[in-house]
Amino acid sequence: MHATDSVRTARERSATLEHQIATTPQKFRVLTGERPTGALHLGHLIGTLDNRVRLQAQGVEIFLVVADYQVITDRDVADNLPATVQQVLLDYLAAGIDPEATTVFTHSAVPALNQLLLPFLSLVSVAELERNPTVKAETAAAERRGRRGMSGLMFTYPVHQAADILFCHGNLVPVGQDQLPHLEVTRAVARRFNNRYAAQDPYFPEPDALIVPTPTVLGNDGEKMSKSAGNALEIRAIEDETAAFVRRAKTDSERHITYEPERRPEIANLLTIGAHFAGTTPQALADDVGSAGAGRLKQVATEALVEGLRPVRARRAEAAARGPEYLAGILARGNARANEVADRTLDDVRGLMGMRY
Amino acid sequence: MHATDSVRTARERSATLEHQIATTPQKFRVLTGERPTGALHLGHLIGTLDNRVRLQAQGVEIFLVVADYQVITDRDVADNLPATVQQVLLDYLAAGIDPEATTVFTHSAVPALNQLLLPFLSLVSVAELERNPTVKAETAAAERRGRRGMSGLMFTYPVHQAADILFCHGNLVPVGQDQLPHLEVTRAVARRFNNRYAAQDPYFPEPDALIVPTPTVLGNDGEKMSKSAGNALEIRAIEDETAAFVRRAKTDSERHITYEPERRPEIANLLTIGAHFAGTTPQALADDVGSAGAGRLKQVATEALVEGLRPVRARRAEAAARGPEYLAGILARGNARANEVADRTLDDVRGLMGMRY
Repeated sequence: MHATDSVRTARERSATLEHQIATTPQKFRVLTGERPTGALHLGHLIGTLDNRVRLQAQGVEIFLVVADYQVITDRDVADNLPATVQQVLLDYLAAGIDPEATTVFTHSAVPALNQLLLPFLSLVSVAELERNPTVKAETAAAERRGRRGMSGLMFTYPVHQAADILFCHGNLVPVGQDQLPHLEVTRAVARRFNNRYAAQDPYFPEPDALIVPTPTVLGNDGEKMSKSAGNALEIRAIEDETAAFVRRAKTDSERHITYEPERRPEIANLLTIGAHFAGTTPQALADDVGSAGAGRLKQVATEALVEGLRPVRARRAEAAARGPEYLAGILARGNARANEVADRTLDDVRGLMGMRY
Repeated sequence: MHATDSVRTARERSATLEHQIATTPQKFRVLTGERPTGALHLGHLIGTLDNRVRLQAQGVEIFLVVADYQVITDRDVADNLPATVQQVLLDYLAAGIDPEATTVFTHSAVPALNQLLLPFLSLVSVAELERNPTVKAETAAAERRGRRGMSGLMFTYPVHQAADILFCHGNLVPVGQDQLPHLEVTRAVARRFNNRYAAQDPYFPEPDALIVPTPTVLGNDGEKMSKSAGNALEIRAIEDETAAFVRRAKTDSERHITYEPERRPEIANLLTIGAHFAGTTPQALADDVGSAGAGRLKQVATEALVEGLRPVRARRAEAAARGPEYLAGILARGNARANEVADRTLDDVRGLMGMRY
């Protein structure tokens, strides 16, 4: 199958899934999360966090992993993890994640999940891991940076991801369109485990990718938004910083505003951000601003962004005001729930593999 | 350093260690074990099991892992594990392992030990794993057999071994002379963990290899002893089978008995086995038998072997008579103890890595 065909198929599949989610949300369990490497920004909010909150509101059960071990896949040590984990947790709450509905947990606190790495590693060959797109991309990136060779943790990352998704019987994983191949190892692990150990009554679901239409949000210099590039608007930014982010945004020399992402990425980015929070489309916003130019666009985008982030900021402030014990409590309850689920899965897996003595 | 130098150094080091073991056994903790792939045989008893019992008698604390996950490093499924694990456990008890003194446990029952695989994988590069002698040998063996590529579990085996050894702060690992490089990954993991996370106060010991002078025990066809070759004497064999094992042993056409392992491996093997249980040396036994020939050698070897295995068989029968609940209880207590130790180590490791939230 050609890559484009496979993307088309996955898109059609995602449309079907969205329909099923709307009618029977209780049939789905989502695993998603990220590495706690720093405070989250506008790029995470639009597309990723918003989508989780949408699924949560639809009644889908979500397991949200703070992938602390994965921080050290490509760096020596993780500095100041407790503070970073707290920031990320505040960002989740700010976006609207409800810790009563969604299970927020850290990898390091769930041994039974991590133990699944062992049986799952037996189901995957070294050659398959070498072909994995994440592993390949990281090999290339490490070579570009002239860093020491890839760590064993990075190399086995796709199998750890399979453990994340399958420990909670996740059957739905939101991904960007370019991340489709990332689920292949998880799907293979589920299929092979079922074939070998549960042929009569398949135990693990083969999870589906849910392709999420995520607008590309760039930094205010027109480059990829990232904390280290200094071009990001963090979710925790105050109102003044939010206005300054738009004010300092690069534009171009053409007066008339048009939505042309390829040719005019900086203008398209402001249109994307403004439209997202104004509840319209970038094209419609461009038509609206038209010859009023970049100044007017920035004014409209700032207003929409400040307005749109007001409830986000309010939720963040409220959670922060409740202090670190409140956050620690959320994580403790999430970890307890994840452990309960992981212990049950591991016990089932041991039983199916004949490892009860 | 040349290989021979490194072996000489390791031998000298082992002699020093033996002296320290004799004077301060409480300073040592041994991790050892094997994969439960079948009943153990005479080759395991002489050299491996005997040595563990010797260390146990000297007062060294031993953790003895039944490496159940490692059974599937190179095969699809592990058939009938519960029965095999029971057989291996009976063989341990037969050899004289005292489950009150030695902690016998299975990998699959100790999640915190297995979780250590994750931080440890971050300390080892893919290139290092590719260079590991076990991994290299297995790659070659798999290619010879025309099997599918190596599994991720086999590839990461040296890191899982590091978790085995370090979870209990093992500082001594009995190895054969050819297994010296096998400890290198564990030593590197301990060293790097200490450098990165415990520079002020090293947390993990860098374990030493204890080279055990193990006589080579062959099958009664002069080839490597293995269950599948049908040339092995299992520890569980009854007295008649023991006599038959020697009776059917290959000899050669020379009448006069001499101890020449290279030129006369079958005769040397009978001398090794006979001498081991008669408490003499193969050379002395050869001198003793001399021109009385192979018939006399077999008679002497049978008597020594039957006599030597009598208490082994008695202990095995006694344990077997106590039933499967007795064996399950031993494993349950061993697993509980291993979990207690592993939970404490994992908690320390999480603390040192800054993963307490």
